[in-house]
Amino acid sequence: MRRITVLDTTLRDGAQTEGVSFSAEDKRRIALELDRLGVDIVEGGNPAGNPKDRALFDDPPRLKRASFAAFGATRRADSDAASDAGLSALLAAKTDTIVLFGKSSRFHVDEVLRVEPGRNLAMIEESIARLAAAGRTVHFDAEHFFDGFGEDADYAIETARAAARGGARTVTLCDTNGGALPWAAGMITGRMVRELGLPVGAHFHDDGGMAVASTLYAVESGASFVHGTMGGVGERCGNADLCAVLPALSLKMGLETGCAPRLARLTSAARTIADIANLEIPRRAPYVGLSAFTHKGGMHVDGMRKNRRSFEHIDPALVGNERRLLISDQAGRSALLDKLADLAPDMTRDDPILAAIADQLKQRERFGYVYEGAEGSFRLMALRMLGRALPHFEALDFRVFASKPWADDSAQAYIKIRANDQIEITAAEGDGPVNALDRALRKALCVFYPQLSGVRLVDFKVRVIDGGGTGSTVRVTIESTDGKSVWGTVGVSRNIIEACWTALTDAIEYKLSGLAEGSFSEVTT
Amino acid sequence: MRRITVLDTTLRDGAQTEGVSFSAEDKRRIALELDRLGVDIVEGGNPAGNPKDRALFDDPPRLKRASFAAFGATRRADSDAASDAGLSALLAAKTDTIVLFGKSSRFHVDEVLRVEPGRNLAMIEESIARLAAAGRTVHFDAEHFFDGFGEDADYAIETARAAARGGARTVTLCDTNGGALPWAAGMITGRMVRELGLPVGAHFHDDGGMAVASTLYAVESGASFVHGTMGGVGERCGNADLCAVLPALSLKMGLETGCAPRLARLTSAARTIADIANLEIPRRAPYVGLSAFTHKGGMHVDGMRKNRRSFEHIDPALVGNERRLLISDQAGRSALLDKLADLAPDMTRDDPILAAIADQLKQRERFGYVYEGAEGSFRLMALRMLGRALPHFEALDFRVFASKPWADDSAQAYIKIRANDQIEITAAEGDGPVNALDRALRKALCVFYPQLSGVRLVDFKVRVIDGGGTGSTVRVTIESTDGKSVWGTVGVSRNIIEACWTALTDAIEYKLSGLAEGSFSEVTT
Repeated sequence: MRRITVLDTTLRDGAQTEGVSFSAEDKRRIALELDRLGVDIVEGGNPAGNPKDRALFDDPPRLKRASFAAFGATRRADSDAASDAGLSALLAAKTDTIVLFGKSSRFHVDEVLRVEPGRNLAMIEESIARLAAAGRTVHFDAEHFFDGFGEDADYAIETARAAARGGARTVTLCDTNGGALPWAAGMITGRMVRELGLPVGAHFHDDGGMAVASTLYAVESGASFVHGTMGGVGERCGNADLCAVLPALSLKMGLETGCAPRLARLTSAARTIADIANLEIPRRAPYVGLSAFTHKGGMHVDGMRKNRRSFEHIDPALVGNERRLLISDQAGRSALLDKLADLAPDMTRDDPILAAIADQLKQRERFGYVYEGAEGSFRLMALRMLGRALPHFEALDFRVFASKPWADDSAQAYIKIRANDQIEITAAEGDGPVNALDRALRKALCVFYPQLSGVRLVDFKVRVIDGGGTGSTVRVTIESTDGKSVWGTVGVSRNIIEACWTALTDAIEYKLSGLAEGSFSEVTT
Repeated sequence: MRRITVLDTTLRDGAQTEGVSFSAEDKRRIALELDRLGVDIVEGGNPAGNPKDRALFDDPPRLKRASFAAFGATRRADSDAASDAGLSALLAAKTDTIVLFGKSSRFHVDEVLRVEPGRNLAMIEESIARLAAAGRTVHFDAEHFFDGFGEDADYAIETARAAARGGARTVTLCDTNGGALPWAAGMITGRMVRELGLPVGAHFHDDGGMAVASTLYAVESGASFVHGTMGGVGERCGNADLCAVLPALSLKMGLETGCAPRLARLTSAARTIADIANLEIPRRAPYVGLSAFTHKGGMHVDGMRKNRRSFEHIDPALVGNERRLLISDQAGRSALLDKLADLAPDMTRDDPILAAIADQLKQRERFGYVYEGAEGSFRLMALRMLGRALPHFEALDFRVFASKPWADDSAQAYIKIRANDQIEITAAEGDGPVNALDRALRKALCVFYPQLSGVRLVDFKVRVIDGGGTGSTVRVTIESTDGKSVWGTVGVSRNIIEACWTALTDAIEYKLSGLAEGSFSEVTT
């Protein structure tokens, strides 16, 4: 089986993402995660670029399988290879693998680099030769290759040949501006595979929304080396998303990669890395998004019940993701029964409680509740109707205050609750009344339920349902986690404080009822 | 030049997006926006599906260029075409154009539909024939076509032929599960174009992250009809994103579409529609995302300075987006000048106030402000920087209170303002703290400015920007009217009360400054 080498550039190209700023420690953690996922090369950054990356290459992460690669440019036009400071910094990096980039576009050589075309060829060859002579494995990134091929194909090919003469192990064709059409890029890649006699790599940017397709098409055309980032992060529209490239190589094209045996880690690796980068994985992200295997339409849900294959292109377990059937006004009685299978395995279609739950669902939806993304509230409601959810606390009173001047913690909340027949009165401040109330509630409850100290909110959404004035009904959806499980809850009211209160208390009752651990069946009245 | 027909299914497939729920009014507004963008067919929904869509087709939006299409299924296996309720509902819809879908996959016919293969062919042909006989233009969606082609190519082709016999104007090949590889889909499309003798359409889902590429590749292979959604919304991973398909058809493939002359509207249309759907456009979205033409890397910014072409695949103005350099941004200056033309007709590009406004804008945007849909706040900010907006009142103090039990008017606000050198102290109650504060503020100000009694809020939106916990930053956008003019204002804060306060006071100052009447030029300091 043909084997494809995988290079991840989340730490280098991905660091160009607007709003992303990695610390050296972030980079180490991400590198370890990528190593566990099975990528072959982790491109770490440019040791000549900034002090943070220099420090990283002074003490690179200890990876088990992957090479940790330094990235840099060919020598400057006005220096010579033997003494060029950038190349020296690359050699000073404690790594065996170096990715060197150079220009393959006549336009860039003339207009941006502003050197004679022949000198650029010498810069490429001599730079690689110095690094290779020092025993490094050098991969060449041919920047702007596809645009360059369109401007002056012979020159673009010459740059790749210069890299080969210098001793590059591979030549990667880069669509730096991200505008190539996949079939055109595929044809050019095929030609280079035939001409070069070296493994050819594919590095695509997503400005046309086609980086994944172009990467795969390049492989189909003979490339044996792919570049990408986790989640497709990167400058402008980002890079080819490895979360889509890796499963396609394995599951759709039948090719071998180091990641193939570990593909079931993909979703969790993507989420861990997004978390470190402080980015959200879009819900609709292929393979790893929360919605990627989520079925909403009545007919789709019905089809899925008849045969799992009917609306899924792959089994979500293969990439470590999960199938979800949404509860919505389009769902029928049997979908509901499916949803309740673990809570009430013996329930039948004729059970009056099932009818009551369906009824309650419809009533609440009419009022503005939406249980998509708020399965926690739905399950808690069902558990209550089944008579199996005791309230773990009672709010006797609370008040929130907010006033000018604005500052951090400019709102306060007072709260009085009862739990285990004891009263707890406390207060907290926060950024706005909702935050203050949230903090006060947790503070009061942690006295009784220390396990709540590990529960935190990960997402918070407010939607005005009937867009009238400030007295409109709002729907608040929150997502909570205890570090293992994630659950969503929802509240609806014309008073935003009440809507938040409902969602917050549901989130806490969900945890206290054992639903987060799946141990709810032990909860009895 | 070859012309490609464009069908938008944001209102139908897009309504299957997790978390999206369109009202009939939302659908009307989106349809009008799509019509202005130049799409040929706006697929509105299924009139047989739910009461909301039935109401929509009883009174469809009045579009200038586009057809507003109803969507539905072939007749039920156990009914006959002449009396089938679903088909009757389609004929009852006030529209000339109908998109009918039927199954092209043997697996689905056997396992999900559970009818004889021959009966499915009859269902397709007879259903289309009934609609066509009633004078409707019928487009056929061949569901699961590509998967079906892999299972039993002859049968898949037979379903398309049955549609042609029934009188379908076009046959669209659907990758319903979204798992096709672009080059395979392209080859199959090419074969169908040759076999069918009817225009062939392309409908791709994005489960592999390749829906855009597959759509374009199908067109390259002979398809003349494309389906997609704005922003790629849709069930699971969504549909082909028209925001990427449309510019590629025009700018990269040189094909004609109804949208080509209006492509500069693309970014604003995408943002308006996302706003109605209450979705964020991902920053890295191709063509229309905020980061799509944003340059961060030092070398890229430097390259961009030397030549705009160096790191851009197209000129962002072609799709109505803007170039942003994250360091010392010079971009957007002339756009800004355009926007200020009525406020400051004599201002030149070199005016230091223009630079100051650009700067202020950039700072605020970094903080989370978005001025689209909040031009009121933008104009007021500009007027302030021009030294021509006197504050008409000053808030000396206010406090809001909210407490259990929930009831109407369960929140209170106290307020103390100064206007015309007089102090006014008052209070009000409301449904939630924001509503109470809004009422108290208006009550206090009406003492001085009776013209405010005619001003009311018509829309109110809350968006959590950085989805962390309850202390997240929120953006509040409100729309106000005095019965003649409508204006939007915005506020951003981690405290929702403060964000509302900013948007509310801007709305009021906008009116008091005469901007609503266009008489601002008379306001002098």
